Amino acid sequence: MERIKDISEFDLITRLENILGTGITQNPGEIHLSIGDDTAVLNPQEGIQLLTTDTMVENVHFLPEITSMKDLGWKSIASNYSDVASMGGRPISVVITLGLKPNQYVKDVEDIYHGVRDHCGKYGGYVVGGDIIRSETFFISVCVLGVSESKTFMSRNTARPGDKIAVTGEIGSAAAGLELLSHGKTDPHNIPSQFIAAHNRPIPKIQTGAKLLKSGVKTAMDISDGLVGDLMKVCHSSDVSATIELDRIPINGDLKNYFPVDWLKLVLGGGEDYELLFTAPVPIMTCLPDDLKESSTIIGIINNGPPEIILSDANGYSHTTKDVGWDHFQTLK
Amino acid sequence: MERIKDISEFDLITRLENILGTGITQNPGEIHLSIGDDTAVLNPQEGIQLLTTDTMVENVHFLPEITSMKDLGWKSIASNYSDVASMGGRPISVVITLGLKPNQYVKDVEDIYHGVRDHCGKYGGYVVGGDIIRSETFFISVCVLGVSESKTFMSRNTARPGDKIAVTGEIGSAAAGLELLSHGKTDPHNIPSQFIAAHNRPIPKIQTGAKLLKSGVKTAMDISDGLVGDLMKVCHSSDVSATIELDRIPINGDLKNYFPVDWLKLVLGGGEDYELLFTAPVPIMTCLPDDLKESSTIIGIINNGPPEIILSDANGYSHTTKDVGWDHFQTLK
Repeated sequence: MERIKDISEFDLITRLENILGTGITQNPGEIHLSIGDDTAVLNPQEGIQLLTTDTMVENVHFLPEITSMKDLGWKSIASNYSDVASMGGRPISVVITLGLKPNQYVKDVEDIYHGVRDHCGKYGGYVVGGDIIRSETFFISVCVLGVSESKTFMSRNTARPGDKIAVTGEIGSAAAGLELLSHGKTDPHNIPSQFIAAHNRPIPKIQTGAKLLKSGVKTAMDISDGLVGDLMKVCHSSDVSATIELDRIPINGDLKNYFPVDWLKLVLGGGEDYELLFTAPVPIMTCLPDDLKESSTIIGIINNGPPEIILSDANGYSHTTKDVGWDHFQTLK
Repeated sequence: MERIKDISEFDLITRLENILGTGITQNPGEIHLSIGDDTAVLNPQEGIQLLTTDTMVENVHFLPEITSMKDLGWKSIASNYSDVASMGGRPISVVITLGLKPNQYVKDVEDIYHGVRDHCGKYGGYVVGGDIIRSETFFISVCVLGVSESKTFMSRNTARPGDKIAVTGEIGSAAAGLELLSHGKTDPHNIPSQFIAAHNRPIPKIQTGAKLLKSGVKTAMDISDGLVGDLMKVCHSSDVSATIELDRIPINGDLKNYFPVDWLKLVLGGGEDYELLFTAPVPIMTCLPDDLKESSTIIGIINNGPPEIILSDANGYSHTTKDVGWDHFQTLK
């Protein structure tokens, strides 16, 4: 099979551009110039702009034996779109940097772009440029420009004592999927497909983020590094503490069956759920639209005090994250 | 000395943010939210937007024994700003992704940010976010959002037969610097400092690009991959051919002394000059402001015909790039 070192950069870019098709690279109203010049040229959108970047490195953020190249393409866009969603915005333009090993198969790189195309086709946004370079470590780095038409946004530094803490969806499913896949348990008859989908095909909560913002929610972030680690970031940014009631955290009905011992670890620290974590005063939580109420769950409360998280279980026992050995000062990953 | 694996991600980000200082991360009028949230939040600028990304990988795009970390920080921003300059725009917001090896020194990474700060302090733009991740290969990937207030831009696909071809500055100096540094010739008393500066501290031609655009020039790109390779991209995008008169290409007075054999190779293929290559019809070239005329040189003409470059020497001999073995279908670098 053809490898990267066998074809020219020009040829490779042309092939990838063809996979995306004009539908994913050009929008006459928004984009003057897409892939193929020194920069993309875009019409500004009405509203405020959101700029974010997120990178996935082989053997650090993904394992090629577990994540297909198509899923990798999907996920690398999804993780960035999720950041835009957490501010209440929608993605507009995407640039992609591929760091490729000369021995990689061209087909694998094409598959990445099939995944990118699928994701952008479903959740919007246009791939308007990028950079393809040689690297001894395979990585994909994505930068997304988004917009919030309402000219407001949600952030991490606005949580206030008394705010209720809520999450969308179910927590820990992506980590469960990774755990099952890592142990070769890929037989779809034997493991719940929702765990695999949660890991391989995460869905950025774009509509949900926009609705939360519209409903008056001011504080949100996406759960990418794990519930506790991400909530701790909110606590640090807002200079508050938080209490989580462990038995309120929404989880998949199969999670405890498959992980009778480790389920809580997956829920608290698993990461990559790309659900939204948000806080709001009671009156705003109470008045959320019905669909948001149904798709989200209140799991705790914001308190005064230095940044810390208290985990409270059904028996009334409380632990701080320090007690259970949680260290948010992790080294790089 | 402290290494990346010895400190937390949180600590690292805080240190880098402190190096930048608020002057390089925040502008009250333009930036609602900078480093530290899921996305940066920006006020849109009046005009059209430019989005670009460029990455430098260790041992592919830079050699640590030649390029200091501070120069690397400078260059990684300069190469992106140069892309924005080539469209006639100015840089606004920057996000930086660092792929770091656990064993790298913290001080080296801090030095990168000193270089970034120096560059942004001099040429504008704000570092509003990024991503720091672990990678077995050290790389720095930068994404820049720029603006063209005039709502027009220069591009590669607008060259027309009859256009004169011009370049700013001197060509080949950056490659000469690299060549001298690669051979350990770093004694400033022995080699012209302008070669070293051209390689280590390239200057994006932001003012020049804006003036060219204002003067009616429609076609420009920056010389990052080498004069012939980059001009070939203009030819492909515009479906034209080009003739360059070799003895008209502006070079540093010392270039032939230091490279009596290879000087032309450095000029035609060296790359990383970050000068601007532009084309325009004679009336526009003639009416350029005096300072632009002084700082740029006409080196050839755009012709009809399939994409090809003819190199014409002072004796009247002509070669096509094919004749001299030029292959623009290079594999990835």
